[in-house]
Amino acid sequence: MPVNRTCWNCGARTDDDHRVRCDCGEPLWLATDPEAVPGEWPASIESMWDALPLLGVEAPTPPPGVSTAAGGTPLVRADSLDTEGVAVHVKLEGLNPTGSFKDRGTAFGVAAALEAGETRIGTVSHGNMAESVAAHAAATGMDCTVLVPADIADSRLAAIGRYDPRLVRVDGDYGRLYYDALEVGREAGVRFLNSDVPWRVAGQATTAIETLAQFGRGEGEFPDALVIPVSSGGHASATWQAVRTLTAAGLLDEPPKLCFVQAAACAPIAEAFARGDDTVTPAEGGETIAYSIANADPPSGNRALAAARATDGAVVGVDDDAIKRAGEQFAGAGLAVEPSSATTLAAIERLRSDGVLDAGDEVALVATGRGFGDDGVAVETERIDRSALGTLFDAAPGAEGA
Amino acid sequence: MPVNRTCWNCGARTDDDHRVRCDCGEPLWLATDPEAVPGEWPASIESMWDALPLLGVEAPTPPPGVSTAAGGTPLVRADSLDTEGVAVHVKLEGLNPTGSFKDRGTAFGVAAALEAGETRIGTVSHGNMAESVAAHAAATGMDCTVLVPADIADSRLAAIGRYDPRLVRVDGDYGRLYYDALEVGREAGVRFLNSDVPWRVAGQATTAIETLAQFGRGEGEFPDALVIPVSSGGHASATWQAVRTLTAAGLLDEPPKLCFVQAAACAPIAEAFARGDDTVTPAEGGETIAYSIANADPPSGNRALAAARATDGAVVGVDDDAIKRAGEQFAGAGLAVEPSSATTLAAIERLRSDGVLDAGDEVALVATGRGFGDDGVAVETERIDRSALGTLFDAAPGAEGA
Repeated sequence: MPVNRTCWNCGARTDDDHRVRCDCGEPLWLATDPEAVPGEWPASIESMWDALPLLGVEAPTPPPGVSTAAGGTPLVRADSLDTEGVAVHVKLEGLNPTGSFKDRGTAFGVAAALEAGETRIGTVSHGNMAESVAAHAAATGMDCTVLVPADIADSRLAAIGRYDPRLVRVDGDYGRLYYDALEVGREAGVRFLNSDVPWRVAGQATTAIETLAQFGRGEGEFPDALVIPVSSGGHASATWQAVRTLTAAGLLDEPPKLCFVQAAACAPIAEAFARGDDTVTPAEGGETIAYSIANADPPSGNRALAAARATDGAVVGVDDDAIKRAGEQFAGAGLAVEPSSATTLAAIERLRSDGVLDAGDEVALVATGRGFGDDGVAVETERIDRSALGTLFDAAPGAEGA
Repeated sequence: MPVNRTCWNCGARTDDDHRVRCDCGEPLWLATDPEAVPGEWPASIESMWDALPLLGVEAPTPPPGVSTAAGGTPLVRADSLDTEGVAVHVKLEGLNPTGSFKDRGTAFGVAAALEAGETRIGTVSHGNMAESVAAHAAATGMDCTVLVPADIADSRLAAIGRYDPRLVRVDGDYGRLYYDALEVGREAGVRFLNSDVPWRVAGQATTAIETLAQFGRGEGEFPDALVIPVSSGGHASATWQAVRTLTAAGLLDEPPKLCFVQAAACAPIAEAFARGDDTVTPAEGGETIAYSIANADPPSGNRALAAARATDGAVVGVDDDAIKRAGEQFAGAGLAVEPSSATTLAAIERLRSDGVLDAGDEVALVATGRGFGDDGVAVETERIDRSALGTLFDAAPGAEGA
C-alpha cells in the first residue's frame, strides 16, 4: 500500500510508508485528496469510519472488534455551560471504547499497520494513549510495547496492564523518548503509534469532521469555533488537516476558529502564541492537575501555532483554579470530564476578553477524556433511619404536600 | 400526558401515570402499540432515540444535554471470545454518558417527568444508577435525591456526589427501601426512577432493540441469544418488552433466547429457574466481586424468570473465579468491563452444557458497564535506561533485524 506523505510546512512529498517526520523537522501528514471527498456531509455517524471518507486519505478497513467502535461520539448542547454570551456544545470523546479520543488514531494506525502486513506496534505514553494502544493491540492479537516512565503510578500501570502489553519502564528523559522510540521502532519493524505520527493524526482528524457534521446535520450550519486541549499538538494538527481538507473540498466555506488550550503551568505553545513566535520553545514544565496535557516540548507544537493563526483562533493557558472550577461546572451539567478536558470551558472567558470569541458565538468544546470522580470532590450527605423515611421530604427545599 | 400501563402478569390496565406496580404485585409496563411501530429497522442508530420508536410506546422528547446522548452504543464482534463454537458479539453499554446502560432508562424517565411538568426525581442506588440519575438531573436542573446505604464507600460517594444531588445515607434494610421510596416519593411528588419503574424499563428496552438492529443491519439476521446480567430484573423485563413488541410488530419472526446471568453467591432468580419455580424466593445474598448485581430480593425477578422460559432461554449463576477469568478474557479482547458484565461471558460454557446454546450459535453479550482497572490485576514490567533503548527489541520474542 504505497501512501503519499506531505509536509504541511515545506510542502515536501514522499512515498515512504515508514517516514513520519520531514527533513525540515516537522511532522508529515498522510496526503489528502479533496477530489476524493464525498460531495455532502454524511446523513448519520455511528463511528469514525463514517466520518473518515471526508478526510480524503487512503483509508484502511478496521479489523473486527474495538477498532470498529472508535468515534461516533455524541455532540451535546449544554446550555448551563454558556459563558459570557457564548453558547456551548460538548463533544463527548470520553465515550470512546477506552475512554478517550485516542482510540480514533489508534484504530486508524492499527488498521493501517495490519493492511501493511505489520503485527508489532508500540507507543510512548502512560496515559490515555497507552490504554488505547494496548487495548486495540489486544483486540487484534498484535504484539504491543508500551514505554512508560520508570516512576509510573500503580493505578496507571493497572489501567494499561489489564490489556497485557509488554510494559517497559524507562529511566531518563521521557520527553526525548518520543523521538528515540520512533527510530528504534523503525529499525526493529515496530510501528510506534506516537501522538503525531501520520496514521494517528488521520484518525484523530475525525473528531473535527464529526463535530462539524453533527452540529450542522448537513444543513450548512457550523460552530464558530472549536476549543480543544493541546499537549503534543497531534490533535491540533489533525483538526487542521480536517478543516483544510473540508474547505478545499467545498464542504466548508471557511474554517471555524481553532482555539487550543494548555494548562498555564506548562504552556509552551500558548507562550509562543502570545509572543508572536513562529516556533515553540520548550518550557520548564511545572505541575498541574491537567497532567495529561503537560507536554514541555510538544512535537507538533509549531503546527498547533500555525493552525490557530491561520483560522483567527488562539492558543491560551488556564490556571489550575480555573480548571478545577470548570470541572465542577461540567459535572453540574451532568458531564464528568478529566481536568485536561475541563480546560476548554475554563478558556472561554479568556477567549472572550481577547476578542477571539464574541457574544452570540456557538462553540464546540472537545472533552477529550472521561473523568473518574477521584479528584477530591467534597461530598455532603444527610443520614436517616429507614423507619423515618416518611419524613424525608418534609424539610426539603421545595417540598410540597408530603 | 395520559399514559396507559399494562401488567405483564395479570393483564390489568390503568391510566394512572403515577402507578408503577399492579395490584397483583408485579411491575407495570408502559402500554405498547405494535401498530405504531415503524415497518422496518432503522438505517442507523446514533442514540437510543433512534431505537425507541420500535418499542411502540408514547415516547417523550429528550431535554438538551446528556439525555440526548444515551444509547447508540457499539455492538462489536469479538472472535477471541468465541467459546465452544459459540460466536461472540459484545454490546458496549459502558460507552453510555455515565458509563453504564442505566443512562437509557434515566434519560427516558427524566424526559417523561419533564413533559409531565415534574421537576423532582430520586433513586435508590449507590452504583451505576445513582451516578446516572444524578447526572441527568444535574443536566436538566432537576431536584434529585439519592438514597444510599449508610455504610457506602467513599469512592462511590465521590462518583455520585460530583453531580451534587441530595445524598441521604439510610440506616436499616436497604433492600426494602426500594418500595418505601416509591411510596414516599409518590406522596411527596418526587418521581423515583428505581430499576423497574415503567419509564426506566421503556428506556432500557432500547438496548435490545439496538442490538437486534445492529446485528442484522436491516437484513433480517438476528443473534440466536442475548446474554444479559440480571440484578433487579428491570433490564430483563425491558428486554422482554422489546422482543415481544418487535415480534408482535412483525419485525422479528421469533425472539432470540433470553439468557440472564447472576453471580452464584447471590442468585435467587437462577435458583428459582433451576427449581422450576414460577416465583423467586429471596436469597441470603453472599459476597461477590460482581457486587453491582447482587440483589437478594429482585423486584422484577418473576418477570426475568418468565422471559427466560418463554424464549427457551435460561437463568444461570456463575462463580467468582469464572467471573474473574472472564473479565481477563474481555480485557484480552481490548474490552474493559465491570465484573457484573463479565458474568455474561462466564455463562456461555454453562449455557452450552445445559443445551441452551449450540455450536454455531451467534450470541450478543450485553456488557452493561465499563471496567475501571482497579480489580487487582497483577502487572509485569521490564525496566531499562533510555541510553540502552537501542537494545529494546533485541531479545523480544519475534524481533527481526534490530
